[in-house]
Amino acid sequence: MIKFSINKNAFQNALRITKQAIGTKVTIPALTKLKIEVEEKGITLIGSNGQISIKNFLPADNKDASMLISGTGSVLLEAGFFENVVSQLPEVTLEFIEKEQKQVLLTSGKSEITLKGLDSEMYPHLQEISQGASLKMKVKALKEIFTETVFAVSTQENRPIFTGVHLETLATGELKAVATDSHRMSQRLLALENPTDLKFDVILPSKSINSFKNVFTNDEQEIEIFISGSQMLFQNETISYYSRLIEGAYPDTNRLIPKETDYTLDLVFDAAELRHTMDRARLLTVMTTNGTVKLTVSGDSVVTTANSPEVGSVHEELTALSKEGSDLSISFNPEYLIDALKVIKAPEVRVRFISNVRPFTLQPRNEEIGFVQLITPVRTN
Amino acid sequence: MIKFSINKNAFQNALRITKQAIGTKVTIPALTKLKIEVEEKGITLIGSNGQISIKNFLPADNKDASMLISGTGSVLLEAGFFENVVSQLPEVTLEFIEKEQKQVLLTSGKSEITLKGLDSEMYPHLQEISQGASLKMKVKALKEIFTETVFAVSTQENRPIFTGVHLETLATGELKAVATDSHRMSQRLLALENPTDLKFDVILPSKSINSFKNVFTNDEQEIEIFISGSQMLFQNETISYYSRLIEGAYPDTNRLIPKETDYTLDLVFDAAELRHTMDRARLLTVMTTNGTVKLTVSGDSVVTTANSPEVGSVHEELTALSKEGSDLSISFNPEYLIDALKVIKAPEVRVRFISNVRPFTLQPRNEEIGFVQLITPVRTN
Repeated sequence: MIKFSINKNAFQNALRITKQAIGTKVTIPALTKLKIEVEEKGITLIGSNGQISIKNFLPADNKDASMLISGTGSVLLEAGFFENVVSQLPEVTLEFIEKEQKQVLLTSGKSEITLKGLDSEMYPHLQEISQGASLKMKVKALKEIFTETVFAVSTQENRPIFTGVHLETLATGELKAVATDSHRMSQRLLALENPTDLKFDVILPSKSINSFKNVFTNDEQEIEIFISGSQMLFQNETISYYSRLIEGAYPDTNRLIPKETDYTLDLVFDAAELRHTMDRARLLTVMTTNGTVKLTVSGDSVVTTANSPEVGSVHEELTALSKEGSDLSISFNPEYLIDALKVIKAPEVRVRFISNVRPFTLQPRNEEIGFVQLITPVRTN
Repeated sequence: MIKFSINKNAFQNALRITKQAIGTKVTIPALTKLKIEVEEKGITLIGSNGQISIKNFLPADNKDASMLISGTGSVLLEAGFFENVVSQLPEVTLEFIEKEQKQVLLTSGKSEITLKGLDSEMYPHLQEISQGASLKMKVKALKEIFTETVFAVSTQENRPIFTGVHLETLATGELKAVATDSHRMSQRLLALENPTDLKFDVILPSKSINSFKNVFTNDEQEIEIFISGSQMLFQNETISYYSRLIEGAYPDTNRLIPKETDYTLDLVFDAAELRHTMDRARLLTVMTTNGTVKLTVSGDSVVTTANSPEVGSVHEELTALSKEGSDLSISFNPEYLIDALKVIKAPEVRVRFISNVRPFTLQPRNEEIGFVQLITPVRTN
C-alpha cells in the first residue's frame, strides 16, 4: 500500500500541472479523478479529460521534493478536492498513507485528513505513443508560434477543422502554423533548429494549445514532439502531454496569401499608435451590429472613421511612417486588427492592400515572409 | 454652451468616483446617464441609481486638473460609454465642446470623438439635504466599523432591515454599528472623537456601505455626516455621497449579548491558527449540505473534526493559548467563524461559550467591550 512523505510545495506544483488535463465536465466520471501511481523510482500523477492527458513524473531523487517512499501502489482521488486539501495543509511536509478500502490519510503538522479514494482499476486506459521519429524544439519557440496563430481559430463547432491550428512540417525544413476563422488568418513559418525525420500535417485543437503554456512553464527547456495516429505528444524529462488531433484535411492556405505584385497600396504604421486608434474605433463599433471602421487613404492623409447611430462617431488622423501606392477606402471590423496587432511584437507594422473588397495583409516591418496575417474587409455602401 | 479643457487623468478619477452611483439596471432610463454641470467655478459630475447618488465637484482652481472653462451649461451622457471613451483618449489633455442638439465633441491629439448627449432637463431631481446638525469623522474610522459589521448582514430580501447595518449614536458619546443575519451578529462600539449634536438611529443598506470605500479613498480625510428623513449624506469638500436609508425599527441587539457571568468556557487562540484550521474544516463541510465542524474541549485537549460522507474527514488538534472553564462539545458552520476572523486584526482571539445550544462570542483578546461577534451553533445528534 502507498506510503510516502513529500515537500508540500513540490507536490502542489506537480498537481497543478497535472490538473490542467482534468475537467469537471467529462462523460466518464472516473476522469474527474487524479490517478496517483507510486513506484520505488518516484510518483506519477495522471490526469485526462479524454482530449488532453498528462502524465507527470516526480522522480524519487528530485531535490526540491524531499521525497521518502516506503510503500507503493496506485489510487484515484477527486482531483479538485485533493488539490485544495494539499494547498491548505499547515506544514512544509505532508505524509500520504493508503489505508484499507482505498482510504488515504494525509497528515501534516497536527492536521489529519482522511480522503475516500477509488481503485485505480476504474481509470480508463490512456493511449500511449510508441516512441519513434521525433522533433526537438525549445518550449519558447513553440509557444511563440502558438500565440501568433491560435487567436485566429474559429469558435464555430460546425467546421471542426477550423477550431484548431494547422501544423505542418515543410520540405524546406520549416514548421508552418496557420489558423483561420474565414474572417482573418494568421500564418507563421518557423525555421527548425534541429534536423528531424518526423513529418506531419495535423490539426491541434485550440484548447490543447491554450493549456500547453500552463503545463510547460520553463521557456528555455527543450521538448520532444511525437505523433501517432490521432494523438500528438509533447514530452520533456518528466511531463508527457498528450493531445487528441482534429481529423480532416486542412485547406491549402498558401493560395490565400496575395502575390507581391497584387498589392496596390503599402503602408507602414507605428504598431502601438495603430492599436490605440483601433481601440477607440472599437468603442463605437461594439455599440452597433456589424460595426466597421473605415480607413481612407487619400494623398498624404490617412483617416479612420467609425460611426454608431446611437452613441456618436470618431474621426482620427493616422500617421503613416511610409506610404507607397494608390488611394483607397476600405471598411473592416477593428476587432480583427486589434487581435492581429496584439501578437505583433515589432514596433512597426506593414499593412498592404489590393482593393477594398480583397483581404489585406499585416506583417511586422522588415520581416520577409515568416509571419503574415490576413484580414477580410466588409463591403459597405 | 459647454466648453472646457481638462487634464485627462484628473477627469477620469472624478468620473470613476461618480460612476460608483450609476448602475445599468435602473428603472428610470435617464439614470444610466452621467450629468455634467459646468459653471465658472468648476465642473460637477452627478450620478445616481435611485438608491445612492453622488455629486462630485471639480473646482476650476484644482491644481491637478489644469482646467480651462470657457463655456457653461449642462448635459447628460451615457455614463459607461463616456468613461471608456475618456480612458482611451491619446493625450494628457482633452477638450470638451458642446455642439448643437446636445452633441459633444471630445478632442485629444488627433482624435475627434462626437458623442450624442441628452438635455439635462430629462434627469430626475435628486433630493438634497438641507445642512444642519452633523457628525465629523475620519474616513478611516468609518471604513473600519463598516468592514467589521457589513459582512454579517442578511442577503435575504424578505426582511429588509437585516440587509443593512444599524448605526446608532449612543448617550455615552459612542457610535454603535451592528449587523446580523440571525445566524451570526457583529457589533462594534466606537468612541466618537468629535462632539456632535446629531443623534441618529438608522439602517444603512449594505450596498451603500460597499461603494463607500470606493468613493472616499483617502483614509486620513475627515468627512461630515448629515441625516434628513430617509437619506444619509457623507460629504467632504468636493464629494457628496447620498444614500437612501432602510425604513423600519432595528431590534435591540444588546439583549443577545451574553452577560459575563453566563460564560462557562473561555478560550484564547492564535487567530491565524484558528483561521487555517477552519479553512481546512470548510473544505469538507462545503461538500455536505449544512456541514458543520465540531469543536471538542476535553481537559487540556481541543480538537476539531469535520466529516463528509462522500469525500472524507478531517481531525485536528488546536492549541489553546489559555483555557478556563468546563468541557464542551459544540458544532457550527466554519464559514461563520472564518468570516468573523477575517475582520479581527488582533493576533489573538478570545472565544467564550455558554453551552452547546447557545451562541458563542468572539472578541479580539484584551479588548473589553468595543467589538463583539456572536455565532449560533448548529444542534447535531
